[in-house]
Amino acid sequence: MKQVVTVKRRALAASEERAETLRSRFAASGTLVANLISSPGSGKTTLLEATVRAFDGELRMAVIEGDVATENDADRIRALGVPAHQILTGGACHLDARQVENGIKEGGLPEVDILFIENVGNLICPTTYDLGEDFKVVLLSVAEGDDKPVKYPAIFARAEVAVITKSDLLPHVPFDLGSVQSQIASLNPNGTVVVTSSLAGEGLDGWLDLLRTRFEAKRQSQR
Amino acid sequence: MKQVVTVKRRALAASEERAETLRSRFAASGTLVANLISSPGSGKTTLLEATVRAFDGELRMAVIEGDVATENDADRIRALGVPAHQILTGGACHLDARQVENGIKEGGLPEVDILFIENVGNLICPTTYDLGEDFKVVLLSVAEGDDKPVKYPAIFARAEVAVITKSDLLPHVPFDLGSVQSQIASLNPNGTVVVTSSLAGEGLDGWLDLLRTRFEAKRQSQR
Repeated sequence: MKQVVTVKRRALAASEERAETLRSRFAASGTLVANLISSPGSGKTTLLEATVRAFDGELRMAVIEGDVATENDADRIRALGVPAHQILTGGACHLDARQVENGIKEGGLPEVDILFIENVGNLICPTTYDLGEDFKVVLLSVAEGDDKPVKYPAIFARAEVAVITKSDLLPHVPFDLGSVQSQIASLNPNGTVVVTSSLAGEGLDGWLDLLRTRFEAKRQSQR
Repeated sequence: MKQVVTVKRRALAASEERAETLRSRFAASGTLVANLISSPGSGKTTLLEATVRAFDGELRMAVIEGDVATENDADRIRALGVPAHQILTGGACHLDARQVENGIKEGGLPEVDILFIENVGNLICPTTYDLGEDFKVVLLSVAEGDDKPVKYPAIFARAEVAVITKSDLLPHVPFDLGSVQSQIASLNPNGTVVVTSSLAGEGLDGWLDLLRTRFEAKRQSQR
């Protein structure tokens, strides 16, 4: 097992180095990068569809999609006129910095204001992988139940932003929003929580304003 | 990387051997074992709650719960008078045969008719791990969207049973049940699909009958 640990540590160090290289590149171009992480079916792609629609003509965007199979998610983004590249991980349950680096190249993605990375649908594996992003965003659908932050504490502690999705389903599911907010607050006292429904359009302004603010701050820090 | 592959292969072989040992033990005691796999929040624990309530007094049951954190799920099962043991995997995204073997011992689980193993909430990692079960069950909540089987083909191909959950939400979410059924049929022509709502009680009979039939068949094969 010692061999595995050593080789894994070396691989992790190489991956962290790559992430720093990516981060420098994004700093130079003033690109804000958000790494979206959630269970399958929490609504990452649907939130991105609503986001690129809202920012159309205001900000230049691109999307990297991570999945074990199918180009479906990238196709959904491209249908809105936004460049997207699909990374297929085969069996792997997360993206890594090397895949993002190659994905930008292979996908011929242009320099943009905001790059969204939609990670593989998984609340566990993507948590510790640095992709050179400015911040991680964790999504939790109200249909998934209000016990998830304490059951998956690592990602809720690390993600600067938590987006509660599918709020239109609140009348139909058992979900104590106050409990979820206090679980997140205790795991991540500096985190931000926004409550949204991409389909009904509720709460999206809070999410969009947050992205605008972070993008402006990044551009300011560049000057 | 060659070292990693070799060591991993050896670990996998050891794990498969352990799974076979478990399988022999379950065959000797005539215990039916189901390995439940899904995204976080698809309703595995809620389905198990409804199941143990329905079989109360008819079948002897026990539950092994896998999670990265908290005893919450085992507590929910124990509250119904059914023995349950919680395995905490720390960061790991699946259970393995060794953990199940140790869990039965440490949890002091009695010999039962049906042992349910609720795997860690994850549609990817648990797919290839044999826990000595009779069959895998994949759950998909209608709130997760109707594109999931083709996006996570490995688990839908391997699970003999697919349980569509939260059917009470069908009027409130975009979900084409026919499309999901045909995706599953093409990935797994011999698979069985049942559509349920654990909260509303819809479709549970199909699930319970399936378990009864499989349990009887296992007992028959023992004689």
